Amino acid sequence: MTFIYKRKVNFYETDAQGIVHHSNYPKYFEEARGFFLEKIGYPYYLVRKELNIDIVLLNININFKKPLEYGDTFEIVTTFEKENRFFFNFKYEIVKENTKVSDGKTRHCCINIKDKKITHIPDDILNKI
Amino acid sequence: MTFIYKRKVNFYETDAQGIVHHSNYPKYFEEARGFFLEKIGYPYYLVRKELNIDIVLLNININFKKPLEYGDTFEIVTTFEKENRFFFNFKYEIVKENTKVSDGKTRHCCINIKDKKITHIPDDILNKI
Amino acid sequence: MTFIYKRKVNFYETDAQGIVHHSNYPKYFEEARGFFLEKIGYPYYLVRKELNIDIVLLNININFKKPLEYGDTFEIVTTFEKENRFFFNFKYEIVKENTKVSDGKTRHCCINIKDKKITHIPDDILNKI
Amino acid sequence: MTFIYKRKVNFYETDAQGIVHHSNYPKYFEEARGFFLEKIGYPYYLVRKELNIDIVLLNININFKKPLEYGDTFEIVTTFEKENRFFFNFKYEIVKENTKVSDGKTRHCCINIKDKKITHIPDDILNKI
Repeated sequence: MTFIYKRKVNFYETDAQGIVHHSNYPKYFEEARGFFLEKIGYPYYLVRKELNIDIVLLNININFKKPLEYGDTFEIVTTFEKENRFFFNFKYEIVKENTKVSDGKTRHCCINIKDKKITHIPDDILNKI
Repeated sequence: MTFIYKRKVNFYETDAQGIVHHSNYPKYFEEARGFFLEKIGYPYYLVRKELNIDIVLLNININFKKPLEYGDTFEIVTTFEKENRFFFNFKYEIVKENTKVSDGKTRHCCINIKDKKITHIPDDILNKI
Repeated sequence: MTFIYKRKVNFYETDAQGIVHHSNYPKYFEEARGFFLEKIGYPYYLVRKELNIDIVLLNININFKKPLEYGDTFEIVTTFEKENRFFFNFKYEIVKENTKVSDGKTRHCCINIKDKKITHIPDDILNKI
Repeated sequence: MTFIYKRKVNFYETDAQGIVHHSNYPKYFEEARGFFLEKIGYPYYLVRKELNIDIVLLNININFKKPLEYGDTFEIVTTFEKENRFFFNFKYEIVKENTKVSDGKTRHCCINIKDKKITHIPDDILNKI
């Protein structure tokens, strides 16, 4: 399952090299992830409130191929990938004018909000994907 | 009572105009405020844990006179100003090479962490200033 | 002339108090300002490229009345206010579920990108407002 | 060659989960990298001005093991690793109270500021490491 999230570069996301500072990419990915969860009917605040779980980030990996600049519009193509009962990944491609300018991956697991212990991915989420 | 907090500009704080983006000034002020509280023996996490109060921000006002750039070192001169039993201000001057490049002010009150209700400024803090 | 810019809170904009950190409000205002300029047909990158001017921030003032939280959707009502040939303000009201939770103001002037000298507000912009 | 950079968590770096938001780790790494370059006598602004090169980020990878919280002090242990004449890495370990809470790696190359073309790592830098 793949969703496409569209976004514009904000001026405050640029740096003195004139391009988007790389620390914004984890934020872009988080937005795309949130959009993904929203699209399958489980916006993140519902995941927390209804399922009582937190989605934890274990690893992030980002490749920077071409820069993004102020004024750019881009798309993030987000894909879900189940690893096993506990671990899963989101994969991201940042596309600007039909060219991939960056890609990345985040690895996650779920924990109970109460005891902070790891728990398997809720079926409610898996069934929707 | 006045404290001087010294700081360098980080590259990630600059924007495509080549200067520090203005949204970093509230962060600089917060650091200077934290430094102030630490110096009087009440670092903010202790304010929360021991006094069970949160310091709330009601207003922020900043004047931008000259820009800060990557590579700059600057000082923030912070002063406390009691308004009455409930309200107080911090005043800030950002100084670079003996020139004031910016100044600002934040207005605050205290609330109980539990019931979120406004409470007077703790004597423990006032006595130290 | 007034424009309404709609926005959701991103998770990465929250802080350990569980609310949007105040340093994001200058960013929200910048987005709303950009939206305003776009709506009158002068997106900021065009202001820079076609008119060769930079819009400089001189002062920012923000009142925090009620917090914004993760999951919130809000509107920023932005108004332009000419002070004289050189100086102008944008005024902002942040509205959540028909309640004003914050308001603010930014004061600006224009400078030539080349010589960085102050210049009057371009008629091209004033005529559109 | 290894350098240790010491840092405190700022309140504005936390999120609604009560921990440092992961988008701050690339900023921490950038600070540690800057500190490394400074220690070998080539602060980044000198790299740009004297050597006329920009250091470009190609990839970032971060493992999150344990969270950082407000009030924490931590160290970043930074190591340089030459890949070949063109590519190099920085490796980072974030250590809090003698426990590694995170590690990461950034991959880089150098470009001429003028023509933006890739260039080999300057001997001036390699000789210092």
